[in-house]
Amino acid sequence: MSVYRLELCYDGSRYKGWQKQGNTSPTIQEKLETALSRILGASIECAGSGRTDAGVHARRQVASFHAAPLDCGAVLAALRTHLPEDIGALSLTEAPPRFHARLSCRKKTYLYRIWRSDEPCVFVRKYVWRHEGALDAAKMEKAAAALCGKHDFAAFSTGHTKKSTVRTVESIRIEEEGPELRLYFTGDGFLYNMVRILTGTLVEVGKGKRSAADMADILTSLDRKNAGPTAPAQGLTLWDVEY
Amino acid sequence: MSVYRLELCYDGSRYKGWQKQGNTSPTIQEKLETALSRILGASIECAGSGRTDAGVHARRQVASFHAAPLDCGAVLAALRTHLPEDIGALSLTEAPPRFHARLSCRKKTYLYRIWRSDEPCVFVRKYVWRHEGALDAAKMEKAAAALCGKHDFAAFSTGHTKKSTVRTVESIRIEEEGPELRLYFTGDGFLYNMVRILTGTLVEVGKGKRSAADMADILTSLDRKNAGPTAPAQGLTLWDVEY
Repeated sequence: MSVYRLELCYDGSRYKGWQKQGNTSPTIQEKLETALSRILGASIECAGSGRTDAGVHARRQVASFHAAPLDCGAVLAALRTHLPEDIGALSLTEAPPRFHARLSCRKKTYLYRIWRSDEPCVFVRKYVWRHEGALDAAKMEKAAAALCGKHDFAAFSTGHTKKSTVRTVESIRIEEEGPELRLYFTGDGFLYNMVRILTGTLVEVGKGKRSAADMADILTSLDRKNAGPTAPAQGLTLWDVEY
Repeated sequence: MSVYRLELCYDGSRYKGWQKQGNTSPTIQEKLETALSRILGASIECAGSGRTDAGVHARRQVASFHAAPLDCGAVLAALRTHLPEDIGALSLTEAPPRFHARLSCRKKTYLYRIWRSDEPCVFVRKYVWRHEGALDAAKMEKAAAALCGKHDFAAFSTGHTKKSTVRTVESIRIEEEGPELRLYFTGDGFLYNMVRILTGTLVEVGKGKRSAADMADILTSLDRKNAGPTAPAQGLTLWDVEY
């Protein structure tokens, strides 16, 4: 058996996220495993670099799987035929024997897109969060800086976990592009809903409801109730995964 | 009564084109007239700068209508609430008394987007024509130049009309953007399906099935059978309308 690395992108609008659920809800992993199993004539299981939630998109997601030696070019072409039009296979290569999409992952970048205007966003409507009203990007940048670094991000996650909630956020970059505000989050890993809660909290800073100085208190509280709301899934895109 | 000019954009994917049809098929004009009539409490009829076919998009379409004097800002805001999310109201202004979206139109630009690669086009899939295989852009540019000018474009139109089929194509600009080939057609007006047949013919030139020298013969034949196929609607966008 060899290990393969598959890069893919998807429009997550109609999926219940990455992770297969064993029921009728369509998920990316399920579509991918079905296509690969059909092409290779063997039952294939894929690991993703991480789960993306229902409705979240990926510009570049990485998956790994084990299979008997295969012709990467031919299988990539077959995947492009078999996958639905909202899931795209970007590349397929043989990986080192110990490669694992999740365990080998060093760094991830997520993009959160906010449409700040009442102007129409017809052509990007499925990839942004419409949030009318002024947002002070300078204040948001200051708060973002206070969130970077190695912290226990328990206050910025939902769900219970016995595992560590310590993560290192390397950078949060905020860019203004016309009516759009783009937030790029880079770190060694993100907890469940973490990027969306960070975004929801930064938006409250942008509206003046919270200040940058509040961020340290939210972090040390370790309490989800103290952070802002969870921003909607559709504005979120897994931008890049590094190994 | 005053005359108003409304600029709008739309994703035409789920519509049967601009023109209302008096049946259950959804059209842009119908959605627009329904929204305006509801907001203004009077039956409003709109003229568009021209019809767009089923599945064709608009980055900027212009419509005009007559109504009792109204507050443009308030009606624009109401339209943005009432229109479906794939139709966007860009602006609303009072126009000179003789303004008519179709009759006053001087110039139109259409964009045709061709995705030349077998790479995924997940995020733009509804706005491009996937056409795998090499296309020689230089040959297409030469043929495009032969199509510019004032000609009888009967060979590049479907349907019968007793009206003149003479049009002036001011320019056909071809741009390469990564895996995309973008064709911008500017002219004083375009016949039914004309941009899509021009595109289908230029693609055959790009594939080497026809040469630039054939264009003059196709034009003078005035016979639809001599031109190339009609490129699919979804790759076409009404780019701009000038007055």
